[in-house]
Amino acid sequence: MTAEVEVREVAQRARVASRSLALATRAEKDATLHAMADALLARADEILAGNAEDVARAEADGTPPNIIDRLRLTADRLEGMAQGLRDVAGLADPVGEVVRGSILANGLELRQVRVPFGVVGMIYEARPNVTADAAGICLKSGNAVLLRGSSSARSSNAAIVAVLRDAVAASGLDPDVVQLVPGDSHDSVKALMRARGLVDVLIPRGGAGLIQSVVNDSTVPVIETGVGNCHVYVDRAADLDKAVAIVLNAKTHRSSVCNAAESLLVHADVAEELLPRVVAALQEAGVTIHGDDAFAGYDGVLAATDEDWAQEYLSLDIAARVVPDLDAALEHIRTWSSGHTDAIVTEDQGAARRFVAEVDSAAVLVNASTRFTDGGEFGFGAEIGISTQKLHARGPMGLPEMTSTKYVVIGDGHVR
Amino acid sequence: MTAEVEVREVAQRARVASRSLALATRAEKDATLHAMADALLARADEILAGNAEDVARAEADGTPPNIIDRLRLTADRLEGMAQGLRDVAGLADPVGEVVRGSILANGLELRQVRVPFGVVGMIYEARPNVTADAAGICLKSGNAVLLRGSSSARSSNAAIVAVLRDAVAASGLDPDVVQLVPGDSHDSVKALMRARGLVDVLIPRGGAGLIQSVVNDSTVPVIETGVGNCHVYVDRAADLDKAVAIVLNAKTHRSSVCNAAESLLVHADVAEELLPRVVAALQEAGVTIHGDDAFAGYDGVLAATDEDWAQEYLSLDIAARVVPDLDAALEHIRTWSSGHTDAIVTEDQGAARRFVAEVDSAAVLVNASTRFTDGGEFGFGAEIGISTQKLHARGPMGLPEMTSTKYVVIGDGHVR
Repeated sequence: MTAEVEVREVAQRARVASRSLALATRAEKDATLHAMADALLARADEILAGNAEDVARAEADGTPPNIIDRLRLTADRLEGMAQGLRDVAGLADPVGEVVRGSILANGLELRQVRVPFGVVGMIYEARPNVTADAAGICLKSGNAVLLRGSSSARSSNAAIVAVLRDAVAASGLDPDVVQLVPGDSHDSVKALMRARGLVDVLIPRGGAGLIQSVVNDSTVPVIETGVGNCHVYVDRAADLDKAVAIVLNAKTHRSSVCNAAESLLVHADVAEELLPRVVAALQEAGVTIHGDDAFAGYDGVLAATDEDWAQEYLSLDIAARVVPDLDAALEHIRTWSSGHTDAIVTEDQGAARRFVAEVDSAAVLVNASTRFTDGGEFGFGAEIGISTQKLHARGPMGLPEMTSTKYVVIGDGHVR
Repeated sequence: MTAEVEVREVAQRARVASRSLALATRAEKDATLHAMADALLARADEILAGNAEDVARAEADGTPPNIIDRLRLTADRLEGMAQGLRDVAGLADPVGEVVRGSILANGLELRQVRVPFGVVGMIYEARPNVTADAAGICLKSGNAVLLRGSSSARSSNAAIVAVLRDAVAASGLDPDVVQLVPGDSHDSVKALMRARGLVDVLIPRGGAGLIQSVVNDSTVPVIETGVGNCHVYVDRAADLDKAVAIVLNAKTHRSSVCNAAESLLVHADVAEELLPRVVAALQEAGVTIHGDDAFAGYDGVLAATDEDWAQEYLSLDIAARVVPDLDAALEHIRTWSSGHTDAIVTEDQGAARRFVAEVDSAAVLVNASTRFTDGGEFGFGAEIGISTQKLHARGPMGLPEMTSTKYVVIGDGHVR
């Protein structure tokens, strides 16, 4: 069988299974999520054995240790995956929520209610915990899910999905609501991207290359996630203690994630006072600064090029520049930001107001670290990714973002 | 210049203009909308002269009279276009609406607020009134718009856009928020579909062929609109007087539009009583019935094929079938519906509940004509189209559907 035929076959089964899942009650879905969590722990040996195969293969291939660390599962990490499923069970069911409703002038009752998409395709890299997270969030939001992880995690993902499917079936739901996309080749990814009509939405999670290729080649609607070239702009009217703390936190709290700061902009009026402090604080934390001329005067600062302004380092590096005014900061952000998260540090209400209005990003922060752009921090309880597109969802996506809506109109023989 | 260069140039100008429009106040936008309405009437002669050229060309080309009627503008129709702009001015501004907001446990203030998309591309057919409607809705929702009407209406559209741009400029806004896409060839449509990054969303309005080609070829995100193969299912527990009235209204009130009924399903238990009545009522109204064996027993009913179940006639034709039960009706709708609007006629609460839950369409109606799926009828005040996709917007799209959102987070030196 070709990859296309295989993929369309699993997608078709997912489509059929999604119909009964869409009608499942919250109680049924929550019981299933708890059963999935129990099964992950009860059958930890199988999952860890599968994972050990992936780790051994990666080591034999000379994979760098930090990537192997992401790939590796432990009893603790399995416990975390199980807890994640239980947390999703604790969240409100988005399906059936009435988004708006009214009685029209002619007496028709109008309601807009949340319904599942149907079938969601996830294309993701590295971490096998995404497999359980995505299965849980999709199940709770009433969607069947087709999972296409990276081939480096194939044994882990196969083991996890086998365990989850058994738990789903034992709970009385159709196990085809959770399926792996068969095949390891790029052909199977391509087939998934072309399964318009069978798959309702594709969510790629991973590096910029993966996301761009899905966005360009997919005929299935895509929700673009995650590339973050995030800025912190320290305004003329900034409290410099807050500024140093925010820059340091935004850059170093966890540098490998999309909401870490990658660029620092400083208003010229505070440069003389701020630069020595912020350079010292960053360098002490092990950060390499790629700076403009003003920054390059400090020991250890590398000279920045346009490439640095564009860069999502995902490492302990930061681009840094002094700007003459707020307008120049806004212009820099307009030119280089990826539209994920940008922050201003200022005590000036007018500057904050302009920054919030004019920066066109999924999240715009005042006097807070970029690291707060996160479904957990925002109180959504679970997050399938952070959308950087404007259609459908923008910013952290929780359960409601995993649904569509339908209009329900009740009359009593109404005609026009 | 190639079409691509030309289109990218206007899109770039629209992008720049969209930035100031996004910051315009409601008062500024409403004053501009009234100025646009005034200008349409004050310069009616220019517009009617442009339209006369299009009509003359269409007549010389042997265009059918009903298409020419759609193309033709009159003083009355211009008055309607102007009134449409004034109506949009009267609607609430979606920009800045707080969709949700809270204070997080750590004291961060979180708000999700509506913001414009930026630049919207409209690709549409025939009627020149869409040019003014789309310009008004986009302006009010803070979006610059690139208009690509059909070449048969090119002189009308050029005249309308020239008048509207002058009015926008006289009101103090950048006239590049309303622009025609240059060029008449398909190359310019293609360039618009590939202007990802410059154009935020494309909305095709027209026949199934146009919409499919945009959906397949566009790298810019698309909101799919309008194809309607709408069903009316008359249940065993239907009130047959209501059923006849609803079927007749859904089919004949205006047969050329997407929310007209195209298929009739009748429960076998009421077929004997209903069929003679509904066949007589439809035929009296000039409707041609394409029926299954049960319907084909009546004089003048044509035998239906699978093509009829799939058909969006947009004419005084209807496909008709007797089904053994509700399950068969649901299965027929699942197989053939375009997911626009489907209606059940029943007095049985259980049947209504199942139909509403299981029919996966943008609008599901109980005891009401399919003709109610409409932005005006739903009380939205203005409608840019009816989305039949699940991402972003589903069903009639008013002003809020023409926006994205952004998260605004206010702290006081918050770090993680």
